[in-house]
Order: sequence, then C-alpha cells, then structure tokens
Amino acid sequence: MKILVKNVILLTMNERMDAYDNGYMIFEDDIIKEVGSFTEMDETCFDEVIDGEKGILLPGMINTHTHIGMVPFRSLGDDCKDRLRRFLFPLENECMNKDLAVSSARYAIAEMLLGGVTAFLDMYYFEDDIARACDDMKVRAVLGETVISSPSCDSDKPNGGLEYGEEFIRKWHNHSLLTPMIAPHAPNTNDTEVLRKVKEISDKYNVPFSLHLSEMDYEIDYFKEKFQMTPIEYLENIGVIGERMVAAHCIYLTENDINLLKKYKVKVAHCIGANTKSAKGVAPIKKLLEANIEVGLGTDGPSSGNTLDIFTQLKLFANFHKNENRDRSIFPAKEILNLATLGGAQVLQMDNLIGSLEPGKKADFIIVETKSVNMFPIYDPYSVLVYSANASNVDSVFVNGVPLVRNKRLQLAQLEDLKEELDYNMFNFKRKAKKYSIKSDNI
Amino acid sequence: MKILVKNVILLTMNERMDAYDNGYMIFEDDIIKEVGSFTEMDETCFDEVIDGEKGILLPGMINTHTHIGMVPFRSLGDDCKDRLRRFLFPLENECMNKDLAVSSARYAIAEMLLGGVTAFLDMYYFEDDIARACDDMKVRAVLGETVISSPSCDSDKPNGGLEYGEEFIRKWHNHSLLTPMIAPHAPNTNDTEVLRKVKEISDKYNVPFSLHLSEMDYEIDYFKEKFQMTPIEYLENIGVIGERMVAAHCIYLTENDINLLKKYKVKVAHCIGANTKSAKGVAPIKKLLEANIEVGLGTDGPSSGNTLDIFTQLKLFANFHKNENRDRSIFPAKEILNLATLGGAQVLQMDNLIGSLEPGKKADFIIVETKSVNMFPIYDPYSVLVYSANASNVDSVFVNGVPLVRNKRLQLAQLEDLKEELDYNMFNFKRKAKKYSIKSDNI
Repeated sequence: MKILVKNVILLTMNERMDAYDNGYMIFEDDIIKEVGSFTEMDETCFDEVIDGEKGILLPGMINTHTHIGMVPFRSLGDDCKDRLRRFLFPLENECMNKDLAVSSARYAIAEMLLGGVTAFLDMYYFEDDIARACDDMKVRAVLGETVISSPSCDSDKPNGGLEYGEEFIRKWHNHSLLTPMIAPHAPNTNDTEVLRKVKEISDKYNVPFSLHLSEMDYEIDYFKEKFQMTPIEYLENIGVIGERMVAAHCIYLTENDINLLKKYKVKVAHCIGANTKSAKGVAPIKKLLEANIEVGLGTDGPSSGNTLDIFTQLKLFANFHKNENRDRSIFPAKEILNLATLGGAQVLQMDNLIGSLEPGKKADFIIVETKSVNMFPIYDPYSVLVYSANASNVDSVFVNGVPLVRNKRLQLAQLEDLKEELDYNMFNFKRKAKKYSIKSDNI
Repeated sequence: MKILVKNVILLTMNERMDAYDNGYMIFEDDIIKEVGSFTEMDETCFDEVIDGEKGILLPGMINTHTHIGMVPFRSLGDDCKDRLRRFLFPLENECMNKDLAVSSARYAIAEMLLGGVTAFLDMYYFEDDIARACDDMKVRAVLGETVISSPSCDSDKPNGGLEYGEEFIRKWHNHSLLTPMIAPHAPNTNDTEVLRKVKEISDKYNVPFSLHLSEMDYEIDYFKEKFQMTPIEYLENIGVIGERMVAAHCIYLTENDINLLKKYKVKVAHCIGANTKSAKGVAPIKKLLEANIEVGLGTDGPSSGNTLDIFTQLKLFANFHKNENRDRSIFPAKEILNLATLGGAQVLQMDNLIGSLEPGKKADFIIVETKSVNMFPIYDPYSVLVYSANASNVDSVFVNGVPLVRNKRLQLAQLEDLKEELDYNMFNFKRKAKKYSIKSDNI
C-alpha cells in the first residue's frame, strides 16, 4: 500500500525542524518514503490519496508515563490529601483485577488515540493481558509490569512482579509494535536487592526499565534520613541507574542529581499536569535540557492527570515553565512540541523509528484539523498546537501506516462498546469505592 | 414558551451548592421556574422537552475579561518578549478598523458560545459596533469602550474613548442583554484627570468601569518611582476606585492593596492563563477570597490567552493555585467552578440575574455532554468539569432562554460564514503583520 497525504501544513519535527506550508508525505506500508513541499505529481500511482484539508500533519505524540489500567480511578477524590496511600493503593489492592485492568487499558488506548497519542510507556499490573489489548488495538507501546515490595492486585506475594516481569519480557520480546520492559514502582517502595535484580533483567534482555523517581516529599525525606542521600544518589550507590532507565517525575532534584542523570544518560518523563495538580512543584526541565538530558512529556495515569492526551500537557508545560522562569520567550512553542514528539521517542529509546516524519521512519502520524473555531488564524502552527488546540481537534491518527482514527472516530473498535465493557467491569469497584468515603470536599 | 430540561446531572451553583444526580429544570421564556430532582410529571404541558442525555446542566460560564476584537492577533508572536509594546500596539493602531473589529467580535462570540460562555466583559474599540454584533448574536455582555492617553485605532486624538464611551453608555443603557460601561486602559496609560472623568461617568450612569491593574512590572515600577505608591494606592489617592470597578489581573499586590480592594469592594477578573503564559506570575487569589473580595475568571483577549473558553482557565486555575500553595486539597473543583459561574456574575455585577440556576434567575445555562471519551467515569461532576472536560464537550448553550448552541452547532449563524468574513477583513492586517518580522523563535 502506497499512500499520499497532501493539502497539509507539515511539521516534520526533524532536527532541522523542517516545515512546509503546503506539504505532502508519501508512505508505503509502515514506512515513510518522502516528505516535502507539495508539487503536482502523478497521483494514479498511489493506492490512496488522503486530502488533509489544510490540517496540520505531524508525528504522533508520545506519552512517556502512564498507567492505562487506572481509568476507574479518574475523578475519584481528586482534591484529597495523600490520596495515593489513603485510598488509591487500598482500593487497587482490593478491587483491581484482570478484566478491569484490560477493559480500562482498551478504553485508555482509545482515549490516547483519539487525542493524537501514537506511542506510550505504561507501567501497571496484568501487563501480559494489557499487552494483548495493545496488540488488538494496534498501538505502539513500551509496557512494564510493576514490581513493588508489597502484595499487589496481581500477586499475593511481595515482589511478584519480578518473576512475572521477566516472563513477560521473554514472551513479548520480538513484537513489532510492543516493547516489553520492567517497572520497579519507586526507590522507596522496593528493596535494594529487588532493584538490583530489576537492573539485571533490564541488562540481560536489553530492555528499558522505568520507575517513579524524586516525586514524593516523603520519598526524599526517607532517603535523607536513612542514607543521607537523595533517591538518585542512592540508586547510583546500589548500581541501579543507566541509559535504559526512564525516570518519571524527577521533581525534587539537586545539582548533583542532575549531574548523575546526565552522566548515566537517564531519560526523564515529565508529567507537568499530574505534578502540579497534586501540588508537588515544577521539575527543573530547563536545567535538565541544558544538561542535554533527554526529556519527554507524560500524562501520568488518569487518576493523577485526568486526561490522557498530550495537548493538555503542552499548554500546561508552556504556562508553568514560562512562569517559573519569569520569561515568556523561554520554551517557544516549537521546542515544547519537540518534547512531545522527538523527545518522547528518545525517552522510549526508539528515536531511530519514530518521533519525526522522515524517510525511513515508521508512519506514525496525526492530522490535526484546522476547521474548529479555536484553530484560526494560524500564523505559527506550533503556537496553535501548543496554545489553542485540544485533543478534540485530532482528525486522523495512523500507527505503523495503519489508520486507527479517521474523521475523529476510532477505526478498529466502537468507543461505546469499550465504555460499556469498562462500565460492566467496574460494578464491584464502584461499590467498594464508596467504602472509602471519598469526597471532593476540602478535607 | 415553557420548556423542561430533564435527564441531566444538575449543578445549580447556588449558595448551598445544591446538585441533583437526576435533575430537571423548567424555564418559561427567559426565566427559570423550577430546578430539582426529577420525578415523573405531566410533560404535555411543555412547549418543548429537552433530553439532556445524562449531560451536565450548569449555569453558563462567565468570562470576566476579554478583548473580542483581537482574534486577528491570535498565534502571532506568542513567545516574543514585550510583544504588547513592540508590535501589538503599533499593529493595532495601524491596521485595526471597524469592519475587522466587528468580524473579529462575531467570531469570538461564536467561539465563546461554542465553549459554554454565556456572558462576558469586553473592553476594546468600536464598542458601538461590537454591541450591535452582540445584539445580533443574542449573547449577554458588559461592554466598555477603551480610553487611552494616545490616539487609538478608532480615534485620532488622545482619550477619544471618553466622549465615545459616554455616548455609547447613553445609547445602550436600557438593553435587555447588554450593559454598557467604560474602560480606561490602565492606570499608567491614562492621565489622572481622565481617570477621574471616567469615574464620574461610571457614577453618573451607574455603570461599571473596568481596567487592567497591577499587571505589568513596569506599571508597578512607574508608580513606585513617580508617587512612591502602588497602582492601587494611586487610584485610591485620586479617588478612582469603588464597587463598580472591575480590575483585571491584579497580579502584583501588597497587603495594603488587598485591604483597599476589600474596602472599596472592587471586583477582580483573574486571568490565570494569560498571566502565566506571559510569565507575569500568579495573582494571590487565595488571599483575595479570604478577604471576601469577589473574583471571577477571564480568558483575556485571544492574543494573550489564545482560547476564549473558561474550561482552559478552570484547569490552569486548579493546577497553578494548588501548586502555588503546595496543597492539593486547596480549591476543590466545586470552588473553582463557582468562580466561573456565580463569581463571574458578581464581577459583572449581575448576580441577581445570572450565575446560578435558581427560580427567578435568567435562563442562561449550558449542557456539557458526557459521551466523549474524556468524560468517563463521573464520581464527581465538578471534578470532571475542572480536570477532564474541554470546550469541545459543550453540547447546548442557552442565553435568556434562547438556544444559541445545540448539538455543538451555532444556531443563529454558520461558523464557516463568520470565519470567511473575518478572514476577508484580515487581508490588510495579515500583510502588515509581516512588516513587524514576528517570529515565534526565542528572540
């Protein structure tokens, strides 16, 4: 299948940031063949010609940190203090199960696709089942089973994710769209030996590992008190750090932490929405980028960040980092969009395949329509995407050359069916949720 | 016309924050007659029965500060330092004209309606023509001609807005939907005598006056250097302060400023999106509310805040103020939504008419659909509106009992026509814009 996309504003997001006001792209099966400024060509040689109707064509956005099994938690006790330990953990251990995780995952994938996300990194439980859901829905993902020092919703014993995770990696190692990895929950919720074992597994199979890092004030306090170190210093000390590591959050960083992240080529998943909603602060992204550390954007799970699209993160990123640095000219829109595309691909360790529209790369792309009221005028398409657009403006989404969203509708499933399936599996969860007396009041 | 709305989650946003999981509302012509929990009733006595399809029914949102003539500037040089003085002012003076302002206003009204805004406060030029556009489109608004100490796009002489503004107030004083006011640009861009004259006009006609206040660092410096005062102390000193005053921004406030705002019952239009995008800081809203100062939300103009819907502001408000106060439980979602509805009505000085769904108030309301992927699950509808929803989820909008948006479509105009009209009038503007060599690069 050889397909031409034309009549688009094309943002390649390549290193030179080439862009074309009236651009075209040709892809054959899963591979991009040509991009450039449109000129008349013989269109009869294509199997399909897609008229972009003056929309913006760009690489699919990449969500570098999420928990797609957690849709049932969305809008539950958003404004409660310490909700993670007070009720999310207990409720998850009591009510999360395979069917619920899978139906949530399918719903979350739909939501990401409809919002223009073509690849994501997920860490949760039941990842083998979640991988099958991803495979069904033909999306690109890096998936890791969570390892935690307590029993979890898919293991009666502590650290059950270690064995599960290694088996999971072996099973999915050669999938065209899915990259298995392993995901220790956080330095303070895993024992030293378990963290070392995780690193061994990552090394042995040459796969990423991802964890929450320097996210919680109590995490920082714990390592300071116990080891007189930061969490990152501790990880270096025990040898659990390296270029395959994707560290989510990294809010509380010292200069030495930044040096260590740089030295070991750690990748950072920055979740500005979730971090600020939970009042944790703004990660020092300017310093990380100045140190040439690779940074991508993440939504965090739907319980933490609520929306799973990257548009929301673009806008929050712009406003928070400009305001934090008291400089409106810092992080111009195209740099922010770069974090959502090529930056995300670097974090997922697949920038050789995705993150920009260049010949030889995979045909993972989206078209954002410019007909809606918020999309006019367009002097600067990067600016429009960062400051004006929202997830509902995404018209078309292709992953690996396969159309997954056209005309704002899912192609391989019906949203209504996914919602019905999830709602059905949430019956018990919703009943139990009441027990935790969750209120949105200021408590 | 007597109309029943049923099958909705109803948020009254009244003082008790009454809400109904399965609610109904009856309105007759422009007035709300009943709201409550739905029970079977004789539906044959209604002229129309609207099935809300389990959407969320709430008061229309109120945008307390905008410049609807400025759509042509959107996405133009967003990331440039001091863009207001460097090119927005010059470009406005050179290229803005009546036709452009009016077509921009019509487009902006459409955008606000489609995003769930039913009332707004505008300050710009050509307000008599803008008022006619508002009248055509049947929206509720407070409109003020800008007074500024330089020639402007609708006056060859300085302070032309004074005379224009008074005439404008006389002309529109008895309109059912429109409230004329007067709008001095800012304390540092108007002379003392002119500001006093504005206050006299506001007193004489008993109409609001609105200005930008404590927004710019150079504004603060100017008053400190010249008078050893803050801008608010200066306004008190010259007698230009009072309960009819709507102060936009109020970012840089001292304790004494807050005391003065409280003492004189000044209303504050808080524009979190525009303020942080331009890296000016976060206004101390927690302190203002603790002082019982009335606060509403504003988008600012489309060149400053880019989007004209209040949903974007809800989310930015939550994340910025929680993060600023390092407390995720501060400003729970329902309090934020309250600022967008009843708070906005107080700022517009019409909380006796709008801002909540209560018998006797005007039928200004919206229905937000809950079918889209981002709107599930709903444990707490306030939370869903603040953290998950966006402007595209607005299904229906009524102002004064008149349907202006149904099924996400404008009822009294075609969006495509409004866009074509605006684009036509922008021909000269776009050509001139190039002269200012506006780039989104970091300059």
